[in-house]
Amino acid sequence: MNKPPTSLPRRQLLAGTGATVTAAALAGWMRDAAANTAAPAAAAAPRPLPAYVNWKDANSLIVHTNTTIETRRSAFGTSIVTPDAQLYIRNNLPAPDASIVADRDAWEVSIEGVRNPRKLTVRDLKAMGLETVAMVLQCSGNGRGYFPSKPSGTPWQVGAAGCVLWSGVPVRVVAEALGGVVGGMNFLTGTGGEKLPDGIDPKSVIVERSVPAAAMADAMLAWEMNGVPISLAHGGPLRLIVPGYTGVNNIKYVKRLAFTAKESDARIMSHGYRISPPGANGDPSQPSVQEMTVKSWINGPGTDGKPVSAGTVQIHGVAFGGMHAVSKVDVSVDGGKTWIAARMVGPDLGRFAWRQFALAVRLPAGSHTLVSRATDAAGNVQPEQRMENAAGYNNSSWADHAVKVTVA
Amino acid sequence: MNKPPTSLPRRQLLAGTGATVTAAALAGWMRDAAANTAAPAAAAAPRPLPAYVNWKDANSLIVHTNTTIETRRSAFGTSIVTPDAQLYIRNNLPAPDASIVADRDAWEVSIEGVRNPRKLTVRDLKAMGLETVAMVLQCSGNGRGYFPSKPSGTPWQVGAAGCVLWSGVPVRVVAEALGGVVGGMNFLTGTGGEKLPDGIDPKSVIVERSVPAAAMADAMLAWEMNGVPISLAHGGPLRLIVPGYTGVNNIKYVKRLAFTAKESDARIMSHGYRISPPGANGDPSQPSVQEMTVKSWINGPGTDGKPVSAGTVQIHGVAFGGMHAVSKVDVSVDGGKTWIAARMVGPDLGRFAWRQFALAVRLPAGSHTLVSRATDAAGNVQPEQRMENAAGYNNSSWADHAVKVTVA
Repeated sequence: MNKPPTSLPRRQLLAGTGATVTAAALAGWMRDAAANTAAPAAAAAPRPLPAYVNWKDANSLIVHTNTTIETRRSAFGTSIVTPDAQLYIRNNLPAPDASIVADRDAWEVSIEGVRNPRKLTVRDLKAMGLETVAMVLQCSGNGRGYFPSKPSGTPWQVGAAGCVLWSGVPVRVVAEALGGVVGGMNFLTGTGGEKLPDGIDPKSVIVERSVPAAAMADAMLAWEMNGVPISLAHGGPLRLIVPGYTGVNNIKYVKRLAFTAKESDARIMSHGYRISPPGANGDPSQPSVQEMTVKSWINGPGTDGKPVSAGTVQIHGVAFGGMHAVSKVDVSVDGGKTWIAARMVGPDLGRFAWRQFALAVRLPAGSHTLVSRATDAAGNVQPEQRMENAAGYNNSSWADHAVKVTVA
Repeated sequence: MNKPPTSLPRRQLLAGTGATVTAAALAGWMRDAAANTAAPAAAAAPRPLPAYVNWKDANSLIVHTNTTIETRRSAFGTSIVTPDAQLYIRNNLPAPDASIVADRDAWEVSIEGVRNPRKLTVRDLKAMGLETVAMVLQCSGNGRGYFPSKPSGTPWQVGAAGCVLWSGVPVRVVAEALGGVVGGMNFLTGTGGEKLPDGIDPKSVIVERSVPAAAMADAMLAWEMNGVPISLAHGGPLRLIVPGYTGVNNIKYVKRLAFTAKESDARIMSHGYRISPPGANGDPSQPSVQEMTVKSWINGPGTDGKPVSAGTVQIHGVAFGGMHAVSKVDVSVDGGKTWIAARMVGPDLGRFAWRQFALAVRLPAGSHTLVSRATDAAGNVQPEQRMENAAGYNNSSWADHAVKVTVA
């Protein structure tokens, strides 16, 4: 397996790693990842769903590569919860073999940095506690497709996000059951159970992320998503859930959960997912992509490209606050010159979930630019402009998420 | 098509109709319905999913007949919302041809009993308003399988129920848009768009139900369930949703919504779904099966038949109040002699939804009878005993829903 190293499109492949990798080990996956940069999603020929997610609804999805699949904006419904069949996929490494979900209860996670560290099976965890949380799961790069700088990586529009329900045991309950967290541990570090390619430094590819230990207040080891055992594609049999944090911090197939004094030195943590100045590479001195911030976008009408009929329409979309509940959504039909308060629709699933909003307005024939702007409970207002950064992370710009509709 | 009438297992076939029907027109479906009484579900050989719901998860379901399919108790998750792939099926008539969901927005419903009656398309409705509600959808006969009298009809256990999210336009918004309800109209009557068999009185088979006009406060014309357009199997493209009312009142493929002075004289209303004394036939003098009442049951552990390990377990289940929010759930591990208050788990999706509850208890080796008892916000307590009735409707007995578990 030891073939000469090959030049790779590294950022999208290894989330910013500069390590030398063995091309053969990742060849098939590399081809997929490389396809990211071939053309923007809208122009690419439709690709079929890869086999491991062939149960998803192809008509609702844009397949960028085998490991990067997003929900079409026009496919988002208004019932708050995103069905599994529509939820986006973004895997930093290929999913493990399906054999790991054959006996879900036997999956083991090593709990470290507590007074009585030990391995626990999913069966053990299910006996320890039960909680359910609704949470926006959003890829750090969602909205990258709107960066004019065209950062490398998947050009996600709005659909690398969904609102899903997770059931599992709170991390704090597990820590307490094992004697509590050892002093001086500032981070909660999760390690994914993906099989690593041979012949390369594991630290260069392993999916291991650290979040502030305070995130333990809401974090969960989850075995269920949207009412069913978590699919392999979404991280089953066990996933670390960190509500309010971007997708990469929610470790799939979690095999180790450690309270640690320092952040992980895995490449995906130290150099990947950093807010780097335009043109710069990621490094540990830069902010890590972690907490989400207030954001909203409109999902209809008119997102399917068909003309909208003149008259009253129900403009609808989703809004979330990241770490805070969303408190208000304003909608504009003139590209942001004037605003009208939208109303919230349906049940409130808690501060980590998104809210559906709607606004009835009369639209005459012509072209209109619809845009939404959310405010969170802490008073943070969704910004007009994106924060420029090399990798195109955290795009919450309301201007970038405008929808142009033609009314006939 | 006019063949001699045949003796049919009428109750399960036509929901209590005594009409003479043409056997040939319903022959295939009759065979399915007759299979209901052949054996209780647990003893029946597994049946494959019928083609129109082949997208459902067979492992989560018990197929009684092609039109009566329930969720396995052990398959219910803890994330509140029941996925489409697990949700029960109970159709009074075979589903219409799938062509009706090919152009969903073109489906028409006739609105009557308002000052300006007219037909509206789904497209029209989508422009009029938008709301989302979480609701327990439960077949009137859910729990029938626990009646020792073995009423005819599907012997449902707990699984002819689910908690789902609906999006659509409130009926009150539609009525207001058409000038308001005409005076003297006491009922809200919905008519299903199923194709009726030839050669028989339409009133004897048509799915048409009336609920008190006051139900308009919460009723909805829905086009979306759990984030996606309503499947044909669940009543798409348009379903009348009456939160708090049993399944049959939530008219699939609704083609007519009328405010009426009197209840429908369709057989399914006048004689079907009535609370009849044991041994009696349904008639209009008896109470109709409409509002649901407070109910709960335990979904785990131990419902899959496998032994539970001695030690702490998380007993979990669902509880709902029908017309009222559920306020409290007590759990007993000794068959109802002593009770402990359970805690609610996860977000509250509103008064028509169910709540997940959980209780951590230590169970020693041996046999235990687990049971739950819910109380609603109006102070109604789930009863110990079922209300005996001929057709086995409305079983909310906590004793009947006990789970016996073996702890090893």
